[in-house]
Amino acid sequence: MIGGVPCYNPCMEKSGVFRIGLAQLDVTVGDFAGNLDKMLTVLDAARGLKIDVLAFPELSVCGYPPEDLLLKPSFIERIGRSLDKLSAASRGLTVVAGFVEHRGGLYNAAAIIHDGRHVGTYRKILLPNYGVFDEARYFKPGVECPVFTIAGVKVGVSICEDIWYNDGPSAAQVRAGAEILLNISASPYHYGRIRQRADTLMARARDSSAVVAYCNMVGGQDELVFDGNSIVLDGTGKVLARGRAFEEDLVVADIEIQSAACVKNSNTEHRTVWDVPVVPVSTSAGAAKPLLPPRDVRDLSLVEEIYAALLLGTRDYIAKNGFKKVVLGLSGGVDSALVAAIAVDALGKENVIGISMPSRYSSPGSITDAEKLANNLGIKLLSLPIEEVFSSYLNSLTAVFGDTPAGTSEENLQARIRGNFVMALSNKFGWLVLPTGNKSEMATGYATLYGDMAGGFAILKDVPKTLVYSLVAYRNRSAGYDLIPQSVIEKPPSAELRPNQRDIDSLPPYEVLDQVLKAYVEEDRSVEQMLAVGLDEGAVRRAVSLVDASEYKRRQAPPGIKITARAFGRDRRLPITNKFRGNG
Amino acid sequence: MIGGVPCYNPCMEKSGVFRIGLAQLDVTVGDFAGNLDKMLTVLDAARGLKIDVLAFPELSVCGYPPEDLLLKPSFIERIGRSLDKLSAASRGLTVVAGFVEHRGGLYNAAAIIHDGRHVGTYRKILLPNYGVFDEARYFKPGVECPVFTIAGVKVGVSICEDIWYNDGPSAAQVRAGAEILLNISASPYHYGRIRQRADTLMARARDSSAVVAYCNMVGGQDELVFDGNSIVLDGTGKVLARGRAFEEDLVVADIEIQSAACVKNSNTEHRTVWDVPVVPVSTSAGAAKPLLPPRDVRDLSLVEEIYAALLLGTRDYIAKNGFKKVVLGLSGGVDSALVAAIAVDALGKENVIGISMPSRYSSPGSITDAEKLANNLGIKLLSLPIEEVFSSYLNSLTAVFGDTPAGTSEENLQARIRGNFVMALSNKFGWLVLPTGNKSEMATGYATLYGDMAGGFAILKDVPKTLVYSLVAYRNRSAGYDLIPQSVIEKPPSAELRPNQRDIDSLPPYEVLDQVLKAYVEEDRSVEQMLAVGLDEGAVRRAVSLVDASEYKRRQAPPGIKITARAFGRDRRLPITNKFRGNG
Repeated sequence: MIGGVPCYNPCMEKSGVFRIGLAQLDVTVGDFAGNLDKMLTVLDAARGLKIDVLAFPELSVCGYPPEDLLLKPSFIERIGRSLDKLSAASRGLTVVAGFVEHRGGLYNAAAIIHDGRHVGTYRKILLPNYGVFDEARYFKPGVECPVFTIAGVKVGVSICEDIWYNDGPSAAQVRAGAEILLNISASPYHYGRIRQRADTLMARARDSSAVVAYCNMVGGQDELVFDGNSIVLDGTGKVLARGRAFEEDLVVADIEIQSAACVKNSNTEHRTVWDVPVVPVSTSAGAAKPLLPPRDVRDLSLVEEIYAALLLGTRDYIAKNGFKKVVLGLSGGVDSALVAAIAVDALGKENVIGISMPSRYSSPGSITDAEKLANNLGIKLLSLPIEEVFSSYLNSLTAVFGDTPAGTSEENLQARIRGNFVMALSNKFGWLVLPTGNKSEMATGYATLYGDMAGGFAILKDVPKTLVYSLVAYRNRSAGYDLIPQSVIEKPPSAELRPNQRDIDSLPPYEVLDQVLKAYVEEDRSVEQMLAVGLDEGAVRRAVSLVDASEYKRRQAPPGIKITARAFGRDRRLPITNKFRGNG
Repeated sequence: MIGGVPCYNPCMEKSGVFRIGLAQLDVTVGDFAGNLDKMLTVLDAARGLKIDVLAFPELSVCGYPPEDLLLKPSFIERIGRSLDKLSAASRGLTVVAGFVEHRGGLYNAAAIIHDGRHVGTYRKILLPNYGVFDEARYFKPGVECPVFTIAGVKVGVSICEDIWYNDGPSAAQVRAGAEILLNISASPYHYGRIRQRADTLMARARDSSAVVAYCNMVGGQDELVFDGNSIVLDGTGKVLARGRAFEEDLVVADIEIQSAACVKNSNTEHRTVWDVPVVPVSTSAGAAKPLLPPRDVRDLSLVEEIYAALLLGTRDYIAKNGFKKVVLGLSGGVDSALVAAIAVDALGKENVIGISMPSRYSSPGSITDAEKLANNLGIKLLSLPIEEVFSSYLNSLTAVFGDTPAGTSEENLQARIRGNFVMALSNKFGWLVLPTGNKSEMATGYATLYGDMAGGFAILKDVPKTLVYSLVAYRNRSAGYDLIPQSVIEKPPSAELRPNQRDIDSLPPYEVLDQVLKAYVEEDRSVEQMLAVGLDEGAVRRAVSLVDASEYKRRQAPPGIKITARAFGRDRRLPITNKFRGNG
């Protein structure tokens, strides 16, 4: 007995169905009213579905990651008020919701709310402080791994990273008798992550012979996209239910208590480094109810998954920042074609405006390709030739430039005039500018600061050029025709800033370059290591030099969507002032 | 006896002078060869001076902060090789130097080197992970507080934050008999910090009745300036020696061993949470030598100290990034005048190029003021009127803009033409562009992205407008005449982007605005709190709205020099997508 309440006794006192609901919501950082509204709507659905425990994602009350908003006391107060409202609205339900607890310091916490009252709290123990994460900047780590008895079932609640390790907090909860490991999370997408996460959760279910219920956030937040993919696994690692990818969803899974309870881990080794109090929440057994029919969710292919991430990241950035329409330069090249297609898929063709900005160096094919693309996508195309302005710059600069040969300065001017044109339209009409550069360019500095880098949100910032082609091919396959014209795909990449310019004149071929960049930027390989796996020495040295020398440009780049293991942005923090050269 | 070596016995076995040397060096991140050269030069000086223990700053081998370079195994290897060279060169000396130890994980460490061998290591325990610091991203915390017996004297070596708290690692070392607390540091400047740091160190000396020897880094590294100000205090908190501010220095202090040893703290309370091994390093008593004469260093006034920080930050950013000359637009306003003055003081007048870029809205006074300033500073002034290019933009955009009234779009175009001109000169001649905006503008978004925000290094990015005036007054006082003309100082601030425009039309008066910004940006005050201290409600609400709405601009701003308690940049990390409004 704990405090007069009967303790859980597996396989003896219970039978029936325990119904778990995982609400993978797309919340917005700082949107307390909006986030609460979404949560309240789910509460009603949960009542209708007779859900025994309903989970909302990590920090769902305030959005994730709130970054330095957490340093504002007024922000923390708002979290408290919002949680109180959620609690009050939870009559008749048991709810687990992510919030920030202020208690001597700040904790990344899960509130356990029962029948209108906040009855217990779990505090995140393992605080990620790598990659895009800065949780040690804000939070103190929890030290307790409570197990909550909900409707007679022992539930070990944890947050995100706490379930990743087989000797972590979840393991301590299992040793204390937890039958269900309920984890609320805000785990951002990068390619490979969905599979890796599912594998880890399956391993956790099998290690512990416990049900694993994992509720992930969904939606875009600046550079991050949360992919949803919430999941419920039984104690053998079998999938009981899955949430959709890149969409809001309420995932409901029925656990047959008899079976769940009887496969308990009898591991007697107690290496617990955290306290594991067992806290009764609600002792009435789950109401008898018929099992829900199983629902399955289709697996996405890798390219499909990446496209979906870009789509959601774009849609959310634009909507959450109060924009409706976007504008971008259409060069006739493959990058701007892909950005336009994603923008149309995200926002609708009526909300995307293309601009053709030809120069004296534009090939006729580029101009007609831009027209063909705009026509296929059904978007408006404006034409703003840059020649008059370019001539006026050259004329004004003559006194200073004298007879110096034309070079980078004159090339960048063209890119900057285009940047100014799109920004002028943005300022005039309130359209968000989408720059079209890809990760290969961002890495090598093959882009003009304040020129083609100008804009609000760089969709392809973390998409290597070779992947741009794969995404275009995927989009054309799903369209069933050459939505993006073959001529766009087949033309050799060129910035068209001087006569007959080709990317290949300045950069290694993209097939090679992208391999080098993955090794150098994402995996921190040295030149020696890259040569050892057979990468071309010239390409390696050239790429490494360019990456090293371009940090100052990236520091002023707009945000983009992280889709790889390491994106430029919060994920990769290098000094500008730095004499260490990868080339040694 | 420890390992056959006689233990330290205070007041009985020793007498004479123990000489400490603190080498406050200006090292560069990643410049292994350059940093090592500097250190080797100091070794020679230390031999000549018969120094008993010589300290180099925190992470002096690789520079601070190395940020994500620490994730590259090749960078860590280079640190090891560089430390080996330093060790080998340290024959006849005892040296304490900051490096990164790779031992299961990474440690921010101090190598204790004696007579050519690395004989001991201290690992930083308290890892700052707030403000500009991300040390928990890279390092594991140490768990031992060793005391090293050097020339018969017990020395507690620690790193930076480890000495800030009266119950921290230094206290544990004192309880284990340390007579000298030797702390190596890389503590960045902000105004108020120098005094605060000295006070803390004095308190530590008094708490522990131990000598405190604090060796700080000096120099600029991207947004940070390390101010030096190394210091040696006796066990009563009296200053024995001080290093210069904002300059390299070798600080030497003589400790009379008898007196240092005999005032030991007899505190018997042992709350040590860390192990405190006592490690013998060198047991020969310090060579008998006469005391060095005391040297004092003049205190700087607050404005003098800030000016010096800006000067060093500018000089180092430019030199360490391989630039020689800089270019900036001279508008005739006070911000660009101050930037020009700092640049001239940092680099010499021959390395600073001003550009006057008048428009149809420039007042005649602005143009002549720019000329007068350039003349006073002795710098070259180019003239590039923007009218022709501006007209060509308006003409090209007519088809799209139609008869919409002129507004932000047309105003920003003028700023962007100027941005393009300075960038064109930068690309053509290799000059670094210095944008001239101040913190008040950066906070409120009263600056044009890709326009006046364009450039490599924003010297005044963290300097509020009211402080700009103080710095100008200081510079004129030290010049002994109106180096920056009175007409520049007295003219009402204006962007001159439309007829008769004044900053005051869009912003609260700067005297009020800067108070609000300090409270809101640096101190996270809520609107209610600001009103409660009597700030004007209109100004507060206006400023808060502008700050909240300008995050996207700041994300693309160039780096600048941190001089306040919280600068924009790594120091303040806010989401762009954020519906939390300070106005509630």
